[in-house]
Order: sequence, then structure tokens, then C-alpha cells
Amino acid sequence: MELAKRRGFIWPSFEIYGGAGGFYDFGPLGSILKNKIIRKWRELYAVGESFLEIDSPSVMPEEVLKASGHVDHFVDAMVECQKCGTAFKATDLARNVTGKDIEGMKESEMDEFLKANGVCCPDCKGEFGKVFFFNSMFKTTIGPGSQRIGYLRPETAQGIFIDFKRLQRHARGKLPFGVIQVGKGYRNEISPRQGIIRLREFTMAEAEVFFDPDNPHHPNFSRLSGEKVRLWRAEAQIAGKDTTVDVTVKEAVEKKYIHNELIAYFAALTKKFLLELGIPFEAIRFREQKPGQRAHYSSETWDAEVRTEQFGWVEVAGLANRSDYDLSRHTKFSGEDMSVTLGESGKKVLCHVVEPSYGIDRPLYCALEHAYTDEGERKYLKLKKWLAPVEVGVFPLLKRDGLSEKAVEIQDFLRSKGLLADYDESGSIGRRYARADEIGTPYCITIDHQTLADNTVTIRDRDTSRQVRASLDNLPNLLASLICDSLVFDDAGEPIKI
Amino acid sequence: MELAKRRGFIWPSFEIYGGAGGFYDFGPLGSILKNKIIRKWRELYAVGESFLEIDSPSVMPEEVLKASGHVDHFVDAMVECQKCGTAFKATDLARNVTGKDIEGMKESEMDEFLKANGVCCPDCKGEFGKVFFFNSMFKTTIGPGSQRIGYLRPETAQGIFIDFKRLQRHARGKLPFGVIQVGKGYRNEISPRQGIIRLREFTMAEAEVFFDPDNPHHPNFSRLSGEKVRLWRAEAQIAGKDTTVDVTVKEAVEKKYIHNELIAYFAALTKKFLLELGIPFEAIRFREQKPGQRAHYSSETWDAEVRTEQFGWVEVAGLANRSDYDLSRHTKFSGEDMSVTLGESGKKVLCHVVEPSYGIDRPLYCALEHAYTDEGERKYLKLKKWLAPVEVGVFPLLKRDGLSEKAVEIQDFLRSKGLLADYDESGSIGRRYARADEIGTPYCITIDHQTLADNTVTIRDRDTSRQVRASLDNLPNLLASLICDSLVFDDAGEPIKI
Repeated sequence: MELAKRRGFIWPSFEIYGGAGGFYDFGPLGSILKNKIIRKWRELYAVGESFLEIDSPSVMPEEVLKASGHVDHFVDAMVECQKCGTAFKATDLARNVTGKDIEGMKESEMDEFLKANGVCCPDCKGEFGKVFFFNSMFKTTIGPGSQRIGYLRPETAQGIFIDFKRLQRHARGKLPFGVIQVGKGYRNEISPRQGIIRLREFTMAEAEVFFDPDNPHHPNFSRLSGEKVRLWRAEAQIAGKDTTVDVTVKEAVEKKYIHNELIAYFAALTKKFLLELGIPFEAIRFREQKPGQRAHYSSETWDAEVRTEQFGWVEVAGLANRSDYDLSRHTKFSGEDMSVTLGESGKKVLCHVVEPSYGIDRPLYCALEHAYTDEGERKYLKLKKWLAPVEVGVFPLLKRDGLSEKAVEIQDFLRSKGLLADYDESGSIGRRYARADEIGTPYCITIDHQTLADNTVTIRDRDTSRQVRASLDNLPNLLASLICDSLVFDDAGEPIKI
Repeated sequence: MELAKRRGFIWPSFEIYGGAGGFYDFGPLGSILKNKIIRKWRELYAVGESFLEIDSPSVMPEEVLKASGHVDHFVDAMVECQKCGTAFKATDLARNVTGKDIEGMKESEMDEFLKANGVCCPDCKGEFGKVFFFNSMFKTTIGPGSQRIGYLRPETAQGIFIDFKRLQRHARGKLPFGVIQVGKGYRNEISPRQGIIRLREFTMAEAEVFFDPDNPHHPNFSRLSGEKVRLWRAEAQIAGKDTTVDVTVKEAVEKKYIHNELIAYFAALTKKFLLELGIPFEAIRFREQKPGQRAHYSSETWDAEVRTEQFGWVEVAGLANRSDYDLSRHTKFSGEDMSVTLGESGKKVLCHVVEPSYGIDRPLYCALEHAYTDEGERKYLKLKKWLAPVEVGVFPLLKRDGLSEKAVEIQDFLRSKGLLADYDESGSIGRRYARADEIGTPYCITIDHQTLADNTVTIRDRDTSRQVRASLDNLPNLLASLICDSLVFDDAGEPIKI
């Protein structure tokens, strides 16, 4: 986190005004990283799965969120210290003090639990008042006065559900079909204290897959059915065990570990996404939510979790079977019939929904943490090469003799070819390599006197520190091939002994 | 707009709940268009200008917006009908009824003006109450209770200004340097009645260029100095004339039409951006804001406007000289010294700012309107090819004989190569061409029996309806070259006579 802040990945928002918990800025490097992660996600869902994309407002009128159940159910149990007035999430307090999960309890049960365990204010040791529920949506009004109550959306999904009829026409009646949305989601957390893991404003990437409940299959299930995933089943959790099982998603369905084939398919896709970000298989598990933990709309939920040093296991995505909950609620509340008539059988059906829902901020943090490599003397980010916010460092060996000018020219040339190239002339070459390593730059090229003579540069590999000498002529293609792993470093040019 | 709604470009949000003024959804085609426009904008600013990008929250604590002046000045004059209670923007009423602009008047002057001109409620003819100012930021609270007041940001710019010191370090002290942010902006309009032109939630792309006021120059001004722009100067507007002048931006600076070289440079860049979207030069003008019209922070502002059929001249971008207004206010309100010491001279300076600020939704609408081509029988979108949400239509001539399967295979192949290909098998080939034309698809390929025999397909050009026959082997490259205009259609294959 120190490195992430210092080098411009992420930093706490509104710092000069004392900050505000639960808000983070993505700096110059972080925002490139974030854009790259979103692009990769779109590749998987918009290109790979041919899902439709929409973009709907983050401010929503109350009617929509009444229907979705969020006005009534999107609540957190909170307590206020009677001495210092600080507010806390009751479930967090219980977990931190006793290690127990009290999610799903009633207010009075929580009161008793906290009292029985002697939980007091962690800031001033004061006593707590009674537990009460606080709706964690940001509330506002649309238009002047208090004409119309609005909320900042807690999920992008509702924007998709209320457009279902238009979207289904656009998909020409085909089932299953998927719709994605990437954008901000909001949760007015009571007292967020976990940095970038618990944000009040975050970026989500959600997919809603609409299917016929009589045919809950993915047409291309076989494409991913052999992918292995690590499952932590509810059964094991209830028995207090941390035993996981490694199975292919095909086996997971056959053994009824995962009850819905679509959830199994998207678990495999989620694993692939996380591997692409550089998270190793061993640090990825799918945790089945226990009945009491599930959101109000879900009949089966698996959380994709990533192991981190700083925060333990962190939920980065959720795969939920929302059944026909949302479409039936919107049918009821809006009066608009959301059912469809199937082309082939003429059967009328209310679609069910499987939702793969991803955070973007958390996987980004996990990718950074897993990339961080401490080899004593040398500390660097071993980011996946495609993910690096600077892809090529461009260094003149000296500032004089026209080397600077040549290097700037090469930087501009590489940028014009779509490579993220960054010029750096300050300090020794060694210092510059170290600075580039620290932010995960996979390749650095150095412009020296030989460059002016024979149009070649050295290319240095971040992970091995090895160097080769290559011609400028084909440099953009060469670097692009290295970055996407279609070329091995040793084949990129003449090896250099250092 | 009918086409845009029917085919999934844009539609009013929350339709099944009766809608909410000022909110629009981007459907499956619209969201691709929007992503492409944003990508093009980033190409110009992040790649071309090497500006840094950040991504900061849309919810901001009140302190920030107190300092920026928005809490006090981001207000609209409104009146309420005393009979039906509907609220209106006073300036809109005045303009609609009298054609006059009353922006900048005091409440009492507006009252008199409306009374003198007999302005009454356009809905029920009722009389209006007194004019009063309404802050048009969406207000909310951060955390439980009313702990801390927050607003949805009216511009992304403030997120950049408050990070100035971190950003300036990241830019290694170099001046001028630029920072961009792309994201949502919000304005709680009183009664938005102009569809997608007046939105309560919109996407902005803003650039803040920090420079030394003693050296207000763009280091690469010569790169664009010869670009022609059409200016509508304040002088002409005050004289009641609609006379414009066409000048190069170099001339505009020399003749002191534009007072700041950076503004002139970014006017040229803005024109290039709009041309890329398919807006012709004749439909683009830069309107200098008259003193009374400028925002509270600006000493010189030019609006880029595009002529539309539906809404007349529409502002799509603003180029403002914000001077040191923002940095000095944040210095004062936060107590954090925002000045920098220049490396070379050791001089301490508070940077000035030139801001090129773009809407994304409006240029998108303008691009659609200008692409709409009505040739009687044939109505189609003559979108710039790179901008089309579907780049290649893929049609089997017949559903049988294995042609469908082959076409789906080709669609998947093209998609895997990054082309936006869309399979369509329903209706006659003529109907399918018409449907593709209607959404601006530049090329359609047809798979017929000959395809199975010799691996060739027909490619049809949207604008001319001409067709050529080409081999499948090199199809992705061929189509990509056609789309980016590096290949002429007639050279793409053997011409076909129809």
C-alpha cells in the first residue's frame, strides 16, 4: 500500500480536507490498471460471450429500489457509542471481538450477543446503545424541493432488469442471453476501516444471464467444463471446517456441489479472469454462502475469494442465482408484464437470472499485492505484462550527445503505435531500472551512442534483468509480441553479457 | 430519435416506472458508440498529449465544493407555478417566450422581466411566484445520520485540483502538464425537457492543463497552429450579429481573438475530435462567452457548438481559462499550499489552468443526427466507419445447406480478431442489408454456396451498395483495413455485378 500510494496507483480521496473513509482515488498508474482490467473483463463477457452491454444512470428513483427490495432489505445493523458517538457496524464488531458471524440475527439477538460478549467501543471503551438497522443506500432528491426521492444504485443490475423487455427484443427472443453493465455502485458504509477493500463508491462489472428455468444450461458449457475450481462448500463451513475440494466444473455439477450449470460455467470463467490478473490458482477459492448469509434475492450464491496478506480472504466476485425474483418484483410493482413467449414452443415464461457480479477495485488491489515481489535488495511488481501501466521504459544513457532527443522521439513513436511508453532521464540507469521495476514495467529500452550509429537499442527484461540488443525498425511489433507472450525474450535480439 | 430508441442506441430511463426527466439509458448499440467515443477522446488526450489520467469519486464532501464555489454559485433561477406547482428554470422561460437571455440578472430583475413580458405557466397558464435560486447539485449524506453532507460532483475537475500536489510530483515538476478524468457529472436540473441534451446525469471527459502564467504556451503549438476554426466572437454577439470568422488558430492568437495560446491549441484539437465523429466543419463553431455568461471561475471561455436539426446549436465542449481560481481557493480553504517551485528558476508559482471540458452524451447525439441520411427509399446512418457499433454484418444466404453454421463460425472468428461482427439470418438478404444500413454497419458479408466451394464471401459497402468477392483467408485484416480507411473498397476483391 505504501508503494501503491507513493507511485500513483491509489491514494485516499480528499486528503487535503482530512479525507473521507471509504473513498479512494486511482492515480495515473492506477487508472490505467483499472481501465485495463475493465477491458479484459469486457473481452471475456462482451466479446467472448457476446453479451449485450448497457449503460444506465447511477441515480435511481425510489420506486425501482422499492421493487427490487433494496429500500427494505439493503440495511446494516449498527450501534452508536453512547460516550463518543462513533457509529459501528454490529457484525464487524462481533467478528473482530469474538470471531463469530452474527449476520442474519434480529436486532434484539444482536443486542444480547454484544452484551454477553462484553463488546464496547474500540475507540473510547464507551458503552453502546441499542442495535438498529440503517439503510446503506445514499439518499438524494431528484428535482427541486423534495419532489422525488432517489438513491445512488447499490448495484448496476437493476438498470438491466427494468430494461428487460427492450433488451429481450434486441436479443431477438433468444434464450439464454446475457447483458452486462460496468459502472459505479454505492454503499453508504457505516464506518469503513479497511482501506480499498470496503469502499463507499466502487466500480462494478455485472452480468445478468436470463434463462428459461426449464432449460438452465449454457449452450457452450463444454468449452469450460474441464476447468478446475476450488470449492469451499457450505456443508464444510457449517461443520466448522476449512476443507476445500478441487473439481472440474463438470464434476461440480454432476456431484451437485453447484446446483446450476450456469453458475458452474461462470465460476470457471471467473477463475480464468483472476488467473489473467496474475492471481495464482492456490489463492482463489469459491465459497458457497450459507443460507442465512445470502442476499434477499438469491437462492444460491458462490463468492469468488482471493487470499491476501493484508486482509485475509477477500470476496472479489459473486455468482448468484437470483431466480425470477427481480423480474417478478418489477412485474408486480410496475404493472408491466415481464414474461416472454418462447418462439419455438409458444410457452410463456418468466426468465430466471444467474448473475456473475464483479468488483473491479478489489481484484485490482489483489493483483497488485500478488505482484509485489520482495527479493531483499530488489523489490518489484511482477505484474502480468499486459497489465502493466507502463509497458516500456525509454531511457537515454546520457542526457547529452543527442541521446535525449532520440529517446523522446522513440517514446513518441512507440506511443503512436499504441504502446504505453514512458521516458525517464533522471538518475543513473540502475536507478531508472529500479524505478521501472517498482511499478512493474516489463521492458526498458536504452538509447546509447551505438543507437545513433546502427539504429539498435538494448531491451531489458524485468523478471530476469537479462538484456538483448535489437533493431529499432521492428521495435513496436517486437515489444507487442513480448508483452502478449507470443515471443520469448531470448529470441528478441542478440544477447548482451553484462 | 425514433430510430435511436427503436434500434437500441438510447432510450429514456426507468420507462416502466413512468420515466424520470433528464435520465437516459444507452442501449446495446449506444453503449458501444459511447465507449468508442471515449476511447477516441483518450487517444487524443492520454496518448497524443501524454496527459495523466485519474479516477476519483463522484460523491464529494461539502468542504471541497464550498472551496470550489459550487455550493454558493452552482445555482439556477427557478419559478414555481402557483396554480399547478410545476417548477421551471427562469432563463428557459424567458428564452422560449421572448428569445432573450436573462442569465446573470438578479432575482428581482428576473421577476420584473417575466412580469413585463407576461410570462405564465406553459402547462396551465397559471401565474408564477417569485424567482429564487436553487442549488443544482444532488445532495446526500456520507455515513449514517447526517454526519457529513456530500454532493454528487457537478464536474470531474475538482477531483483533479485537490490532487494537484500528488499529480505535480508524478509529472516530475514539468510545466505545462495535463491531467484528464472521464466519468459521471451531475446537475439536478429543475425541469429538463430537452431529451438527451439536458441531462441530470451525464458523462464528461475533462482535461486540466496546469501552466506557468508567465509562460502560457503549448510546447507543440506549431503541430496544430495551421488548423482552421470558425469563431463567433463575443463582440459580434453583443452587436446582435451572427457573423463568424474562419481563421487558423495561429491567426486567432495573433489577432487576439483568442487570448490564450493553450485555449487556441485545444480549440484546434476539439475541432479535430468533432471531425473524427463525423461532424462537418460547417456545423462546428466556437462561441465566445460574453462576460455575464461565464461560470464563476472563468476569465475566458469558448464553447464548441454543433448545429443540429432538432435542438439548434448545441454546446458540446467548453474551453475555459480558470486562471488560478481553483488552486488558490483550495489553498485558502484547505490550508495546503498549492504553489510549486520551478526547477530551473527556483521561482514559486501558483499554476493557472486551461480546461478543455467535453460532454460525451451530446457529441454522441450530434454524431447520430449528422450520420442520419434520408435518401427517400433508403434511410441509413452514414456513421464514420470506425464509430459503427456493428462493424460487420454476417449473413448466410440461406438457413440450410450448412450456410448458417459456416456463417456463425465466421462471425466467431471475426469477433475473436477484435471485429464487432453480428450474425443475422432472419428475412431476405435485402431486408438484412436495410437493417444493417439503418444502424450504420459499414460492411456486410454474405455466405453462399460458393463460400463452401472456394472459401470466398461477398462484401457489401454500406455507402455505395457495391459488392466485391474476397477470400476468407485474409478477411479480418481486409475488413480492419477497410474500416480504418487504409484500403479502398474497390481494391478489396473482385467486383461483382448485380
